[in-house]
Amino acid sequence: MTSTAQAQQPNVEGRRLSPEQVRKVAPALEKYTQDRLYGDVWKRLGLDRRDRSLITVAALIARGQAPALTYYADQAIENGVKQREISETITHLAYYSGWGNAMAAVGPVGEVFARRGIGGDELPAETPPPLPLDEAAEAVRKQRVGELYDSVAPGLVGYTTDYLFRDLWLRPDLAPRDRSLVTVAALIAAGQTEQVSYHLGRAMDAGLTQEQAAEVITHLAFYTGWPNAMSALAVAKDVFAQRAAK
Amino acid sequence: MTSTAQAQQPNVEGRRLSPEQVRKVAPALEKYTQDRLYGDVWKRLGLDRRDRSLITVAALIARGQAPALTYYADQAIENGVKQREISETITHLAYYSGWGNAMAAVGPVGEVFARRGIGGDELPAETPPPLPLDEAAEAVRKQRVGELYDSVAPGLVGYTTDYLFRDLWLRPDLAPRDRSLVTVAALIAAGQTEQVSYHLGRAMDAGLTQEQAAEVITHLAFYTGWPNAMSALAVAKDVFAQRAAK
Amino acid sequence: MTSTAQAQQPNVEGRRLSPEQVRKVAPALEKYTQDRLYGDVWKRLGLDRRDRSLITVAALIARGQAPALTYYADQAIENGVKQREISETITHLAYYSGWGNAMAAVGPVGEVFARRGIGGDELPAETPPPLPLDEAAEAVRKQRVGELYDSVAPGLVGYTTDYLFRDLWLRPDLAPRDRSLVTVAALIAAGQTEQVSYHLGRAMDAGLTQEQAAEVITHLAFYTGWPNAMSALAVAKDVFAQRAAK
Repeated sequence: MTSTAQAQQPNVEGRRLSPEQVRKVAPALEKYTQDRLYGDVWKRLGLDRRDRSLITVAALIARGQAPALTYYADQAIENGVKQREISETITHLAYYSGWGNAMAAVGPVGEVFARRGIGGDELPAETPPPLPLDEAAEAVRKQRVGELYDSVAPGLVGYTTDYLFRDLWLRPDLAPRDRSLVTVAALIAAGQTEQVSYHLGRAMDAGLTQEQAAEVITHLAFYTGWPNAMSALAVAKDVFAQRAAK
Repeated sequence: MTSTAQAQQPNVEGRRLSPEQVRKVAPALEKYTQDRLYGDVWKRLGLDRRDRSLITVAALIARGQAPALTYYADQAIENGVKQREISETITHLAYYSGWGNAMAAVGPVGEVFARRGIGGDELPAETPPPLPLDEAAEAVRKQRVGELYDSVAPGLVGYTTDYLFRDLWLRPDLAPRDRSLVTVAALIAAGQTEQVSYHLGRAMDAGLTQEQAAEVITHLAFYTGWPNAMSALAVAKDVFAQRAAK
Repeated sequence: MTSTAQAQQPNVEGRRLSPEQVRKVAPALEKYTQDRLYGDVWKRLGLDRRDRSLITVAALIARGQAPALTYYADQAIENGVKQREISETITHLAYYSGWGNAMAAVGPVGEVFARRGIGGDELPAETPPPLPLDEAAEAVRKQRVGELYDSVAPGLVGYTTDYLFRDLWLRPDLAPRDRSLVTVAALIAAGQTEQVSYHLGRAMDAGLTQEQAAEVITHLAFYTGWPNAMSALAVAKDVFAQRAAK
């Protein structure tokens, strides 16, 4: 471990494995964790630590690796992610990663909140006043999906409108750009490249820069494996090209 | 929680997280769980609670979320799924979701059986008399797969015939329609859209209606995430169209 | 259980579920485990038990089923996989299956090493002298990836070169053929067929025969489910054909 890496690393103690335990099985893995993951990737410019924490939390939930949140949710707060943003990320991913994945995050994140003595004062309301809806964009989305699937599964199409785009996406305690960010991270983490195109475009509409998008994929290569990142990169390249051509 | 939702909800106590625990982390998630998941989706017409339980159990096994079966396998029995059907679902998914996924279900489901005092009297035999085989349909399937892969992996082609289609699929304690149903649910849950087309057609050949198929996908949107459901919906649309054109 | 199967089965006690526990839930699953998995698949010619253990370990890590390694890592050592090879497989899969999947393997594998009284003497060095690099092949790979993605995500392209192909792949304690083998197994296990083509070709360049490749897929059908195996088989067929046409 370089001393610089150590200095930048909040709460290493929160790791569930000690460096010694890792070294007894895979010495290089511990070295790479210190030098490359904490010592290099997390310090890259182009995406700040707060955003890196947010996408890491989302990726872990999407991959069913919620126990690691006892470290990463804590680190996220240290890096500037708000309690209410973590809470909303969990609720959001119930819809995008499955109910069980979201529920699995409740225990570990609850531990982190309790350990830090954070009460419920800052938690999002059950039904807060919604953000304003871009009615024009939503009409386009609704028509597109409706034409495709109204005759196939009207129930699911209805839920997509009512539960997702006219409710979940308008909840104010996670900014639209961040909501798209955690969605993209969850999709990459689960290898669901089919939907990356739409949600990456949406994230960029909401302010995510191309450089940041590339950094998201680069960061997630480490947490979700190179193959998921490379598949996402192919999609991102197309998204970038289409936006440049506009 | 609406009182109606509560009344319809068997064994909420079987949940491993209390509503209070969820509310301390994500109040909206608890509200959505009560109002939307239990209070809406599970009550939808078009697919009865027994079938919803069966596909939920299959989805959990396929996604490696077996611990949740301590609640959902119990609820399945409450909703009319037979002990032997749960047993067969586990055995079936050893082949379709991987041996480890099936084995992981044994502990939690064993707990449910024990808690309910269900002995082994109703368990499927190791080698029961098989259902009759549709020799013509099996000949077509075998020829199609054989032409593709006999020269590539004859061992796997042979197992597919001997272990799956001339054995597993003929086991009588899970009806062919239900066997296809848990297969489709497992495929959607794992994002394996490539095989959904064949198995959804097979399910419909065995009696699953188009409305039920749409409800399966709608239900699974909540348990396996919207992206898996939307990818499956595109496949289902094609399957429905091809069958309508016949 | 046939007595032959039993004789060939090292350390059945390492299983976390007793045969009795499995039989109380799914008698056929226990029978299939004995007769087909241990009694048939593991004994197939065309791929030796050492290779079968290696790909099983890789598949379990890739699927987030690390707890099963308390049995399968032990069995791997019994079957001739070296301690240093298991260690390198874990480090390798940090990059190919995600950091969390690799870290999850540390605990169970550490237990196996401790139980067997294997110290750290045989563990790979953090930074051992690298294997020689095939500069020509690496130049081709680098150019191909660079043309595609240098302008999109130069950071990730750089890591791919520096961390993977000029470092990880040259670590000497897992032979290149085996490194490709665990990569292919991890890809199949995670349903990442997109990258199977490149890595299967690489494995065959490094000495994996076509028969062995087919056996890898056949074996993994049981551990990762039929759908993943069938999707991989389609890719393998193309790879075999392209190589035959050369």
